[in-house]
Amino acid sequence: MKMIELIATKKEGKSHTKEEIQFIVNGAVSGSIPDYQLSAWLMAVYFSGMDFNECAALTEAMANSGEILDLSEIGKYVVDKHSTGGVGDKITIILIPLLAAAGMPVAKLSGRGLGHTGGTIDKLESIPGFKTSLEMKEFISQIKTIGAAIASQTKNLTPADGKLYALRDVTSTVNSLPLIASSVVSKKIASGANVIVLDVKYGRGAFVKTQQEAEKLSQIMVEIGKRLNKSITAVITSMDQPLGNAVGNSLEIIESIEVLKNRGPKDVRDLTLYLGGLALIKAEMAKNMEDAVSRLEKHLDDGSALEKLKEIIIAQGGNADVIDDYGEFPTAGHIVEINSSSDGYVSCLDALKVAKACKILGAGRDKKDDVIDYSVGVVLNKKIGDRVFDGEIIARIYSNSEELSKISTDILLDAFKFSTSKPQEDKLIYKIIE
Amino acid sequence: MKMIELIATKKEGKSHTKEEIQFIVNGAVSGSIPDYQLSAWLMAVYFSGMDFNECAALTEAMANSGEILDLSEIGKYVVDKHSTGGVGDKITIILIPLLAAAGMPVAKLSGRGLGHTGGTIDKLESIPGFKTSLEMKEFISQIKTIGAAIASQTKNLTPADGKLYALRDVTSTVNSLPLIASSVVSKKIASGANVIVLDVKYGRGAFVKTQQEAEKLSQIMVEIGKRLNKSITAVITSMDQPLGNAVGNSLEIIESIEVLKNRGPKDVRDLTLYLGGLALIKAEMAKNMEDAVSRLEKHLDDGSALEKLKEIIIAQGGNADVIDDYGEFPTAGHIVEINSSSDGYVSCLDALKVAKACKILGAGRDKKDDVIDYSVGVVLNKKIGDRVFDGEIIARIYSNSEELSKISTDILLDAFKFSTSKPQEDKLIYKIIE
Repeated sequence: MKMIELIATKKEGKSHTKEEIQFIVNGAVSGSIPDYQLSAWLMAVYFSGMDFNECAALTEAMANSGEILDLSEIGKYVVDKHSTGGVGDKITIILIPLLAAAGMPVAKLSGRGLGHTGGTIDKLESIPGFKTSLEMKEFISQIKTIGAAIASQTKNLTPADGKLYALRDVTSTVNSLPLIASSVVSKKIASGANVIVLDVKYGRGAFVKTQQEAEKLSQIMVEIGKRLNKSITAVITSMDQPLGNAVGNSLEIIESIEVLKNRGPKDVRDLTLYLGGLALIKAEMAKNMEDAVSRLEKHLDDGSALEKLKEIIIAQGGNADVIDDYGEFPTAGHIVEINSSSDGYVSCLDALKVAKACKILGAGRDKKDDVIDYSVGVVLNKKIGDRVFDGEIIARIYSNSEELSKISTDILLDAFKFSTSKPQEDKLIYKIIE
Repeated sequence: MKMIELIATKKEGKSHTKEEIQFIVNGAVSGSIPDYQLSAWLMAVYFSGMDFNECAALTEAMANSGEILDLSEIGKYVVDKHSTGGVGDKITIILIPLLAAAGMPVAKLSGRGLGHTGGTIDKLESIPGFKTSLEMKEFISQIKTIGAAIASQTKNLTPADGKLYALRDVTSTVNSLPLIASSVVSKKIASGANVIVLDVKYGRGAFVKTQQEAEKLSQIMVEIGKRLNKSITAVITSMDQPLGNAVGNSLEIIESIEVLKNRGPKDVRDLTLYLGGLALIKAEMAKNMEDAVSRLEKHLDDGSALEKLKEIIIAQGGNADVIDDYGEFPTAGHIVEINSSSDGYVSCLDALKVAKACKILGAGRDKKDDVIDYSVGVVLNKKIGDRVFDGEIIARIYSNSEELSKISTDILLDAFKFSTSKPQEDKLIYKIIE
């Protein structure tokens, strides 16, 4: 097989065989195919696309390029939940203890990622002492003992994806749906779970901007799952405004604890219950959504989900006192109140702008080795549809720099739009693909 | 400027500015843009195309990446003629002495190229002693003295094109019309002529297969010329069957000499006169085609064009005795006569298959350092539309290996198709773009 011919195949819009995909992935990992040929191929894939069988073959080959966790000793079903990324998205942090409390084992490996605010791993690391770099033996053992573990991905997983992603990142070929889908699912498969619930976000604060694109991406990931014998369910949700009220690392953990305390924002609670409900149904632990949600609500009511979070924090070396005393978290030096200069309703709350307001404060990173300030961020008092009076507080900025607070305030004010009449409510959950 | 953003620009189908193109060309030559980004960009260009202004900017930047010959001391107009490549295409070899005899200076730099049969430079090197690697000083001085010179391109010309072409060659991005056009014209511009006549071939034996594609390619090259103040005229000609009867290096030189002796195949003579006529008109040496052709015919009639070839051969160190004694050329060991097993008319004579029959014998090369056998090739006795009787000789194979002769014979026989009625004549010249 010759790579130049495979580039031509894709350039001409034809499909690759499984063997051809395997050849490309092998060549990418071993270095026998030079980067300039891989990047020409990636661009040809961007333009010509890949069918479901090609995506499945690429996913499988990338998963097999490294270690694949064997979680079979844990139970028949092990759940993994993944979000394509959004602003204020702390669902994973609530969902993992909640499912574990309901007796459903959860194995969560997460990337650190770049972005305006930290990833799940970064947020958890805002809990003093919390350790996310677990040996895979520890990881599995913890799931067996307490039903859940959350760790950062090791380099042994999907090295082919790592190699191709690094090239995509510098050749403007990141935003190809077949490549995104194969990358996401290959990591999930290598992580060993067999019930995978994907939260595919679209809108201002997501990398996928439209429902249609989110639907296409979801379809590809679900079809890959079918071809590789994994239960993959994709839930398409809106990310026009941030999820919940808190955006920023420790601020989001606090909001997560609030939800586990049976309080917290309704949108975060509802989406957590819905995604958790799907996981229980797919793992044959509930007959239908009503049954699943009522079971999960019980674990919020009786405090067992909160207790499970405590167990996880302790198991991973963190200071569990944060649950009862938020003062144990890293705390921002000063809080700036943002007041409305309008009277009316919030008609738009641009998630991307809120994220940028947090990024400026130090909540995210551009490069792998940038240091995150866990304490900074934004807490929104008003969200889309809320009534706002002139002069009322619409948000608070948590900052460690007066100068940065000012820049952040301007960006945040720009994120809000107001209307005189109450805007129509936007549905959070758009569609399920399964 | 960042290359990743320029890749995105092209990927999204937008146009580059002149400065952006210059940045890419500079980066390609200096190595500051890595190959993997250049190849992703090349593939994006393949899919998104480039408009005339972008092509002109790329052409100019590539031409300026190296030496540009200054031929202004030779005269107001200096002609260059270029063919996009075809089987049996020896027009340049006839046209150069013919134009020079008519008082029109011709500066011809030619690439060696890969292919089924040699390029113009290889064909000329079948003349014993003929030197094609001239210093540019010698080259210009020879044009001043005898009106014409033919030399192989030096590495100092268009290094950017060399770099990009090498990448295109291994990333399946050769067949992009804007890239082909820019590559061809950049070399013409660096070669210093200001009247450029392009023979753009389409059909079985050309790399462009359809009239439509040839027309698009011609349009781009002519538009580049307009933007860079060069007179570029493109003549679109058919390459379904070979041009003339001889295919192979020395065999084609012999046929060229025959045309200069006012004999030789009509199609070769007609096309030479037409392309030469265009050059004279563009250089303000003739009012119209009739006038131009009658002037050129005079130089074939009176032997002055043949005499000019002799001068060129002598000036470049070759043995001019070949003109009167074809036995001075390298000669093939044996000649195989190919007989028709059909009775009727030649309805198809596949140029590509004829070329392959020659390649097998050793007339071409795959890699730069492959050695060409100048003596081998094919001479066709019958061409499309000719009456053929059963058992009649339709071609002769000139070979140095009995075994290869057999393989070549099979390919050649497969190139011929016959019909019972005379097929419609195919026009050689399809269209002029200027």
